Amino acid sequence: MLVIRRNNLLLGFYRAVLAPAARPARAMVRIAVVRDITNRLQARSAQRSWKRCYSARVTGKEPQPPIRSVADLKAWLPGASVPLVEVCGWVRSVRKSSGVRFIDITDGSSMRPVQVVVEKSLAADIRPGTAVRLKGAWYNTVGKNGDGAGASANSHAASAEARSPINDGEDTRTSQPTQELKVHQVEILGSSDPHTLPIQNKYQTPESLRNVPHLRFRTPLNSTVLRLRSDTMASLTRFFANEQFYQTHPPIITSSDCEGAGEAFAVKAGPNTEFFRDPKYLTVSAQLHLEAMAQAIGSVWTLSPTFRAEQSDTSRHLSEFYMLEAEMSFVKNLEEIMALVQKMLRSLAQDLSQLSAASELRQNRLDSRDPAEKLAFADLAEGEVLRRRWAGLQSQRKWPRITYSQAIEHLQTVAERFDHPPAWGSSLQSEHEKYLAEVLGYDEQEDAYLPIFVTQYPRQIKAFYMLGSASSPAEGETVDCFDLLVPDIGELAGGSMRENRLSELESSMQLHGLEVPGKRDAGKNSLGWYVDLRRWGCPPHGGFGLGFDRLLSYLSGFSNVRDVVPFPRHFQRCDC
Amino acid sequence: MLVIRRNNLLLGFYRAVLAPAARPARAMVRIAVVRDITNRLQARSAQRSWKRCYSARVTGKEPQPPIRSVADLKAWLPGASVPLVEVCGWVRSVRKSSGVRFIDITDGSSMRPVQVVVEKSLAADIRPGTAVRLKGAWYNTVGKNGDGAGASANSHAASAEARSPINDGEDTRTSQPTQELKVHQVEILGSSDPHTLPIQNKYQTPESLRNVPHLRFRTPLNSTVLRLRSDTMASLTRFFANEQFYQTHPPIITSSDCEGAGEAFAVKAGPNTEFFRDPKYLTVSAQLHLEAMAQAIGSVWTLSPTFRAEQSDTSRHLSEFYMLEAEMSFVKNLEEIMALVQKMLRSLAQDLSQLSAASELRQNRLDSRDPAEKLAFADLAEGEVLRRRWAGLQSQRKWPRITYSQAIEHLQTVAERFDHPPAWGSSLQSEHEKYLAEVLGYDEQEDAYLPIFVTQYPRQIKAFYMLGSASSPAEGETVDCFDLLVPDIGELAGGSMRENRLSELESSMQLHGLEVPGKRDAGKNSLGWYVDLRRWGCPPHGGFGLGFDRLLSYLSGFSNVRDVVPFPRHFQRCDC
Repeated sequence: MLVIRRNNLLLGFYRAVLAPAARPARAMVRIAVVRDITNRLQARSAQRSWKRCYSARVTGKEPQPPIRSVADLKAWLPGASVPLVEVCGWVRSVRKSSGVRFIDITDGSSMRPVQVVVEKSLAADIRPGTAVRLKGAWYNTVGKNGDGAGASANSHAASAEARSPINDGEDTRTSQPTQELKVHQVEILGSSDPHTLPIQNKYQTPESLRNVPHLRFRTPLNSTVLRLRSDTMASLTRFFANEQFYQTHPPIITSSDCEGAGEAFAVKAGPNTEFFRDPKYLTVSAQLHLEAMAQAIGSVWTLSPTFRAEQSDTSRHLSEFYMLEAEMSFVKNLEEIMALVQKMLRSLAQDLSQLSAASELRQNRLDSRDPAEKLAFADLAEGEVLRRRWAGLQSQRKWPRITYSQAIEHLQTVAERFDHPPAWGSSLQSEHEKYLAEVLGYDEQEDAYLPIFVTQYPRQIKAFYMLGSASSPAEGETVDCFDLLVPDIGELAGGSMRENRLSELESSMQLHGLEVPGKRDAGKNSLGWYVDLRRWGCPPHGGFGLGFDRLLSYLSGFSNVRDVVPFPRHFQRCDC
Repeated sequence: MLVIRRNNLLLGFYRAVLAPAARPARAMVRIAVVRDITNRLQARSAQRSWKRCYSARVTGKEPQPPIRSVADLKAWLPGASVPLVEVCGWVRSVRKSSGVRFIDITDGSSMRPVQVVVEKSLAADIRPGTAVRLKGAWYNTVGKNGDGAGASANSHAASAEARSPINDGEDTRTSQPTQELKVHQVEILGSSDPHTLPIQNKYQTPESLRNVPHLRFRTPLNSTVLRLRSDTMASLTRFFANEQFYQTHPPIITSSDCEGAGEAFAVKAGPNTEFFRDPKYLTVSAQLHLEAMAQAIGSVWTLSPTFRAEQSDTSRHLSEFYMLEAEMSFVKNLEEIMALVQKMLRSLAQDLSQLSAASELRQNRLDSRDPAEKLAFADLAEGEVLRRRWAGLQSQRKWPRITYSQAIEHLQTVAERFDHPPAWGSSLQSEHEKYLAEVLGYDEQEDAYLPIFVTQYPRQIKAFYMLGSASSPAEGETVDCFDLLVPDIGELAGGSMRENRLSELESSMQLHGLEVPGKRDAGKNSLGWYVDLRRWGCPPHGGFGLGFDRLLSYLSGFSNVRDVVPFPRHFQRCDC
C-alpha cells in the first residue's frame, strides 16, 4: 500500500517537473512537492532503528547508564544485579561444566574478556571464534565472598585470572566471585570452525602470528596495541592543538628524495605511460613540505606514512612506517625544539597512563595468572624495564644533552664493547646509540630511563638542510641537530635547526653533492621549490621527526616494530 | 674553563669504565659518574631559553596574558595600551606616510593581518614578504572615536578593511580607530625581494596560484583553508573518540586493487628487483583492511591517503587524496551507518563554526572592503550557497533518503536536462547526483541544503563486498549501500553493509568476475585474506568512506578540490 501511494505521488511529481523551463513560481511548487516526497520517505525510515547499537548496552525502560562496550561493563559496579544486558562480541573460549557453559567474550574494548554463563541447551553453536549477540542478566560481585546477587552463577564461575587456556575442557575448580552475564538469549552472528581457527586461545609466538596479520589483532595483546595506537594519536592531536600547531597533510607522492639516500620507492601508473611528467617517488620524509607550510602558518605537524626501500631486516625498520613530524617558524635555537619534544612525550605518557590500553598493558601483567597471558607478556620487555621507560618519559627532570663529539669520546673509552669502532665523522651505530641511552640516560634517583639528546653531529653525515653550529670542534664542522636516543631502540627522534639563508643553503647543497637549482628552476630541479623558500622571508626555523611505530614499540614493550603495526611491510614481505 | 673541567671529568670517567667487565658495584659507580656529567651538561644548557617562543607574546615582569599568536592578539581587548609586545611574522604590505610606515603583518594564525606602525628610520629593510620580529607597544582602540590611548598612532592608521592593496603607495586617507603595534625595535629574520615575490598582496587567480604550490598558502584564503583542514582533523578525532571508534593506520602499499577498477599506481624499488615478492600497489581504499581490524576491536576509523591513477581532469578528482573511512562490527542495518554519517558531519559543522578558520571564511566575506579580499572571496561559492550548505549539515532534521530506483525514475522525468540519459543499471553521473542533491535536498523551511542519501544501487555497478538488499525491485538485484550527495560536488561519501557470509561473498565475487580464493590461498590470491575474514566469526558489519578533500571544498566554497589540498597531485601534475 505504502509503496503504491509513494509511486503515485512520484508520478504526480514527475508530471509537475516535466515542464520544460522552471520559472521561480514553478520552482517553488517543485520544491514543495519534493519536500512532500522526502517527508514521506523520512517517515518510513524513521520507523527503523536510528540510534547506533554499541557492542554492549543495558536495555529496559528506565534511563540506563552509558554502557557501550565490554570495557564499560567491566568498569561498571552496579549495587545489584541488572536484568537486561546485551553484549555483542567474539568467543575467546568455551569451558564445559555440568549443564552450563562458561564462555569468555570480547568485543576488543578491553584486553581481558567478560565471562558469560549459558545453559548447555542454548550453547550448541557457541564455539571459539564465533561472533554472538547475547542477552542476559548482569551479576557483579566484588570481593572474595561476593554479595550473593549472582550466587547461582558464581557457584560455577572460575575467575578470569585462574582460568585454563585449554578450550572445551571440563571445569571443576572452586569458584571465585566475579562479574558475569547469565545469558537467556543467544544469537549467532557469525559461525566459526574452531578446528581451523588460526587464533586459538593459547600462547602463540610473535613469529607465528606474523603469518596471519589479518587475524592476529584478535589476540589480547595485539588488540590492545591497536587501541594504544589510537589513544596515542588522539593524545598527540590534543597536544598539538593546545600548542597552536596545525595538523597538515603533506604529499605522499613526491619529486624529491629528501635525504638523498636513494632508497625511495618509485611510483608508476601503467607500464608505458609517464602519468606524471617526471619520475615520482613515495615520500621518505614530509619535512621539506612541512617547512613550506610552516612559512605560511607558523607551526605545523603531521603523522603521515613514510617509505624506505631499505633491504635491511631488523626489528626496528619497516618499508612503510608512520612519522610524526613537526616544524616551527621563528624558533630561536635547537633548545626550543628539544624542549618541545620532551614536553610532547611527557604529555603523551601522562595522558596514556590514564587510558585503558596502556593501563591494561601495565596492570594485567602484574596480576596475570593465565598461562597464555603470562607467556605473551614474557615476549615483551621486562616489566621493570617498561616501568623505567614510562618513568623517564614522565619525569619532570630535563632530559640529558650531550654533544656528538662528547658521545664519540665517551664511546671510544669502551670501544671494545662494539662491533663498529666509534670514530668522529662516522654515524653512530645502533649499538652505540643503545649504549649511550642506557648508560647516560639512566637516572638513579628516579630509577628511570631518561631519553637523551645527542647534539651537534658532523655536517657531512647529516642532511644538507641543517644549520651550521655557531662553533664547531677541531675535528670538523658540525650542525645544530639532535638525535633522541632511548634504550633498546636507539634513535627515536631526530631534529635540527634548518639553514634559512639562501647562499649558505646553496653552499651546503654543493658540499653534499647536490645540484644547486637556479632562480627559475623551481619547476625543473626537484629541490628548486625548496630553495625558493629562502628567497622571500625565511625566518630561523626548525623541527623534528619521530618514528611513531618505534615509539609504540618503546611504550608497549614489543621488541619488534613489526608487531605494533597492523600490516607490516618490509623487504620481501607485504601480506594482505 | 667549563670545557676543560668537563673534559677532565670525562677522562676520569673513561678510565673508570675502561675496566674490562662491569661488576654490580662498579656499575653503580659508573652510573653515578655519568649522572655527574649529565648534571653539568644540563646546568650549562639550562642557561639557554627553555620555553617555546610563540610568534606573539606580551613581555614584561608582571604575569602576562596567554598571548601566543597574532590571532590571540587581535582577539585580546586590554583596557589600556600595553608597553611590551613582541610579534613575529611576515610582511603582507607596506604603506608609506610622512615619517612612518604602516605595515601589515601576519603569522598565519588569522586570515587578516595585524597593523604595525614603524618609524621610517627603522623600516628601511621591511619589504613585502620579509620575515620580522618586532617589539613595540600595543594600542587597542575599539569604536569610531577610539579611547585616545593610541592617539598618536591612530592619527595615521587606516583601518584594515579600508586599505588599498597597492604596496608602497602613499597613504593619505583619514584615520579609523583600530588595533596596532607601535614598533620601537625591528629585527629582520629573513629578507625578501619584493620585485620577484610571487605572492603579492593583491588578487591572484586560483589558476596562477596553482603554479606556486609551495608559496600559495601564504595568501589569506589558502592559509585559512590549511587551518580549516587542521580544525577538521581535530574535530573528527574528538568525535570518533567519543563514539568509541579506534583510529587506525591501514597500509598504504597493498596487494589488492580494492574496487577492481585497475586504476592503482604500482610501487617499485629499483628497476630489476622485486622488493616485495609480488607486484604491489598504492591503496585505493582502506576498507578491506579496516574490516579486518573492526573484527578485532569493533569500530575503527582512519583518515588516510588514497590513490587513483585516473586520467580524469575534473575539479573533483585528485590522484592522491585523503579518505575518511570508518567500519563497524555488530551493525544491524544500513540506517545505523547513515545515522552515524549524519551525526559525524553535524558534529563537525557545529564544532567548526565555533572555530576561527571557518568563522573567518564566513564573517570576513560579510564585511570585506579590501578589493583583493573581495575578489578572492568571489572565486568561492556564493555566500548564500555556503550558508545553506552549513545550515544543512547542522540541521536537526533527518537527511532525506531515496532509493536508487526512485532516483532513476525521478531523473528520467527530467532526462532532457542531462548529457547522459538516466537508466536503471547505469551509474549515476555527476550531473545526476548534483541535480538530485540540489532538488531533493533543499529544505525550504530551513532554507538549507540537506545532503541526501541515495540507497540500494544495482549489484552489478557496485563493489563485490556489498550485502544484498532484503528485497530488490523488478529491474534487478540491489545491494544495501548508499551514496551521500550534496549540491555542486555530487558524491561526498559512500557506504554499505558488507556481505558477512562466506558462500554469499564467494558468489558475489564470481558474479563480479573475480577469482574466488581457496581455503589455503590466503597467501597467494590477493583477496584470500579478505575472504578468510568470513571463516571465523564474521558478524554483520558495515561502514563508509568520505572524500575528505571534497568535504573541505564543500565547507570552504573552493570549487576546485585542487585548491584545498596543499600539494595537489593529478594527471600530468605533481609539483614539489
